[in-house]
Amino acid sequence: MTAFFDHHRPTLEAAREALFARGFWSIYPEVPSGRIYGETAKAEGESAFAALLGQPFTLPGHPEDRRLGAELSPFGPELGIAYPAADPARLLDASQAAAPALADAGPEARVGACLEILARLNRLSFLIANATMHTTGQAFAMAFQAGGPHAQDRGLEAVVMAWDEMTRFPAAARWEKPQGKAAPIVMDKHWTLVPAGIALTIGCNTFPTWNSYPGIFASLATGNPVIVKPHPAAILPLALTVRIAREVLAEVGLPADAILLAVDAPGAEITKTLATDQAVRLIDYTGSNAFGDWLRAHARQAQIFAEEAGVNTVTIAASPDFAAMCDNLAFSLALYSGQMCTAPQNIYVPKGGIETDQGRKSLDEVSRGIADAIDRLLADPARAAGVAGAIANSATLARLAEARKAGRILRDSAPLPEGRSATPLLLAVEAGDPAAAGECFGPVAFVVACEDADDAIARAAAISAQKGAITAALYDTDEDRIARAIRAFARAGANLSINLTGNIYVNQSAAFSDFHVTGANPAGNASLTDTAFVATRFRRVMWRRQVAA
Amino acid sequence: MTAFFDHHRPTLEAAREALFARGFWSIYPEVPSGRIYGETAKAEGESAFAALLGQPFTLPGHPEDRRLGAELSPFGPELGIAYPAADPARLLDASQAAAPALADAGPEARVGACLEILARLNRLSFLIANATMHTTGQAFAMAFQAGGPHAQDRGLEAVVMAWDEMTRFPAAARWEKPQGKAAPIVMDKHWTLVPAGIALTIGCNTFPTWNSYPGIFASLATGNPVIVKPHPAAILPLALTVRIAREVLAEVGLPADAILLAVDAPGAEITKTLATDQAVRLIDYTGSNAFGDWLRAHARQAQIFAEEAGVNTVTIAASPDFAAMCDNLAFSLALYSGQMCTAPQNIYVPKGGIETDQGRKSLDEVSRGIADAIDRLLADPARAAGVAGAIANSATLARLAEARKAGRILRDSAPLPEGRSATPLLLAVEAGDPAAAGECFGPVAFVVACEDADDAIARAAAISAQKGAITAALYDTDEDRIARAIRAFARAGANLSINLTGNIYVNQSAAFSDFHVTGANPAGNASLTDTAFVATRFRRVMWRRQVAA
Repeated sequence: MTAFFDHHRPTLEAAREALFARGFWSIYPEVPSGRIYGETAKAEGESAFAALLGQPFTLPGHPEDRRLGAELSPFGPELGIAYPAADPARLLDASQAAAPALADAGPEARVGACLEILARLNRLSFLIANATMHTTGQAFAMAFQAGGPHAQDRGLEAVVMAWDEMTRFPAAARWEKPQGKAAPIVMDKHWTLVPAGIALTIGCNTFPTWNSYPGIFASLATGNPVIVKPHPAAILPLALTVRIAREVLAEVGLPADAILLAVDAPGAEITKTLATDQAVRLIDYTGSNAFGDWLRAHARQAQIFAEEAGVNTVTIAASPDFAAMCDNLAFSLALYSGQMCTAPQNIYVPKGGIETDQGRKSLDEVSRGIADAIDRLLADPARAAGVAGAIANSATLARLAEARKAGRILRDSAPLPEGRSATPLLLAVEAGDPAAAGECFGPVAFVVACEDADDAIARAAAISAQKGAITAALYDTDEDRIARAIRAFARAGANLSINLTGNIYVNQSAAFSDFHVTGANPAGNASLTDTAFVATRFRRVMWRRQVAA
Repeated sequence: MTAFFDHHRPTLEAAREALFARGFWSIYPEVPSGRIYGETAKAEGESAFAALLGQPFTLPGHPEDRRLGAELSPFGPELGIAYPAADPARLLDASQAAAPALADAGPEARVGACLEILARLNRLSFLIANATMHTTGQAFAMAFQAGGPHAQDRGLEAVVMAWDEMTRFPAAARWEKPQGKAAPIVMDKHWTLVPAGIALTIGCNTFPTWNSYPGIFASLATGNPVIVKPHPAAILPLALTVRIAREVLAEVGLPADAILLAVDAPGAEITKTLATDQAVRLIDYTGSNAFGDWLRAHARQAQIFAEEAGVNTVTIAASPDFAAMCDNLAFSLALYSGQMCTAPQNIYVPKGGIETDQGRKSLDEVSRGIADAIDRLLADPARAAGVAGAIANSATLARLAEARKAGRILRDSAPLPEGRSATPLLLAVEAGDPAAAGECFGPVAFVVACEDADDAIARAAAISAQKGAITAALYDTDEDRIARAIRAFARAGANLSINLTGNIYVNQSAAFSDFHVTGANPAGNASLTDTAFVATRFRRVMWRRQVAA
């Protein structure tokens, strides 16, 4: 049962070293290159994807009461895939039935299975890229990276953190208490790792694998059977994941039902029924604050690990390289049309302008600089499609249309030739304008006029603390003010990137290095992947026995 | 600011080693001996205690709106100590004001202060023993151990676990991502530890220091200011603790208000007001399930670390040493009159009797054996007082009187000559009797007649899972059945002690070795002291800055 563990042990050890070093590390290549993945991998991924379309999706042995599925590619076509779907009670029963064997298998067997699942997912990265692209609207390059290797990195990170926590204390110890001149009291103690219970992973529309893998793999590794509830519009990437996982589990003699797919239909979601069942003890959730609030109010039997919405900010206090700053921000705003949880929304700029390497720039010149950079970036339609992709959910377009009335338009949004798409809308507002007081998910950004640089920092930090923020960016040249900003954003619980230019963006969060989401503001109570993300997924229960002196 | 850290570093390192070895370890001697604590220590402790009686309690600089205090020793006298008391809003303001300096001090300064506080508390162990004795009703020997060194062990354990978690990941790292033939992207990353917020510790009547120190020290070490809310009947041990802590904090230049005392009067408790304030983000609670449920329903802004009630069980399936078993159980039942959270209550025995080293014993003979052992243990009044102590809360005596009607009396309870006291009541009931279906806090135990040994194990494990259990004891000689019991109690989340005899008892839970309370059943969601107990008391927030290639 531990052959996979032995096989993947070098990966586990290298990943563990990386986890505690926090430098750059990845074992799953992010470049969709034939030289890495095999010259035929790209074509095979495409044909494998095409073969799934319009067909029933096979999940051997999976509970099934009916077939469901109505995915529509943001790039056009209906997927037409019919997934096995089962009533919540049946899924919960099957999950419960799988629990004892998964718990008894022990950390090595479970971690070995997880590592093998990840390795197989990596080999399927081109198929998953196509599945991700046509459910999320991500352009292919991003769908490959974020849906494939980067999501696999996140899964591996969670497995390693879980492994380290499970093995942090010994499984047995001898306790020997001196008794003066008498013989010592001796006890042999043993600890069993006891999983929390059924784990529910609630996937999102935009990053079905990237956001779900940490919870899925942390739970599986620590012995909790997982029910994967995909967003009805983004089932396929997680259905493929569940299929691979079930195959590996069965191969090592574990119950395939230790991971289940909970497909439902829009308007008839089963999430609430699953989430409030007494047997569900862990919930990993990515989505709106409204549903997060609902979960916290109603799923009180479960521990909830949540990533929710927030208002990510950019504060422009000064710029050591104005042109590069504008280009960098343009990319951050345009990438996947602002649908990343890490994408900036509110750009705080002193109303009197800023100092730059090009001399003083007025607020208007700063706004114009960013707008022009977006235009330059998206001038070529093919490149624009490759950066912005499509809009995952039509509600985002409605929100965007509404947002156009909310401020002075600095740069208007427009569709791209391909798919349901929209380039960034850039609006000018005064500080305190309610339009920029909360999240406006999608390709919408606000340039907020502030009193001065310190006011800009204070406002950006305040909205991070109040509304939540996963990222914050700062451009500045004044080291004292940078130090003040570091303190302000730390207190607001927002990870801060300073003076990014070139090919690195505030949107990017690297596994094994950045702790994604701090857990310290309303954008999330969980951080990928820190100790708290794994430590309560299982408990240590002792048996101790006296040893004759 | 880190002089104390440097001074106590050897203690920290030895304790850290012990934490991960889980063998016996303690730095605070548990024997109240003049050779260890100084020949005059006992007398000084007594006179220091006497000097406090009938006086205002001094807490220099502490917020104060009035004086409160109506403690009554279970051994008789009124304490007559008047403590400074302040309105919740004033306490919360003072705590908030102390937060930034405590957060900014960093782990070394805070951990150093905590270690110094513990060292000074240790030197005051005789005073704290008297304070504990006359608020809890513990006999002196237990009050010294549990109120002093063992509580200090727990505090140290929490500090070390917090230290290890705070230093588990580096404070800074360089991230260098290769870019093929181009220069790598280089980022310097830094992480600030950001405390969760105000921590509220809600103390209990029976173990004011032992149960409160883990939360207090875990929160202080991780940078959260603490408001200590003692039980109105057991203020003094925590007031002394707060005084020492404030002295040390002030000496190292930290705000004394990083730890505050929240004294209230019975019937006018301020706990709910404090617990539901938005600034309170951590609650460490020991007490009833009813108030625990209230906290979970209302203090939703806070993380709650709770130790609540449960039904601890003994299962007697067979006995390799009948006489020693009866003596051992008699002591566990009589010790502090069953008022320990670890004390057994329900004794499950096959109705057909058991095999023992003395031959087969009927159910009646087993019951008689335990009852007689209690009688023997308590025959000498002085020894009885030293074991059983007094009853902390008069409600316990009322419950005991009620319980006498609940089953056939195998051994009746009786007062001891000294204090408000009661020896164990032992009752016989049938399996399924509602009298034994929940916790009956105090010196009450039930012998529950079961079908057979496996039924006894199943019933004991089931009540542990349903009602919660901190401990479970098993006596058996059948190794296969022992293995089944180990699995059953592990699933029920109850720490199991097998065949204890002699000078080691199921009630005892050792710091650095046993994880006290598993967190895996309704008796508590927190374990002293595992990773989960510290990991969410702070968060890591990053700032990262691009390094020119």
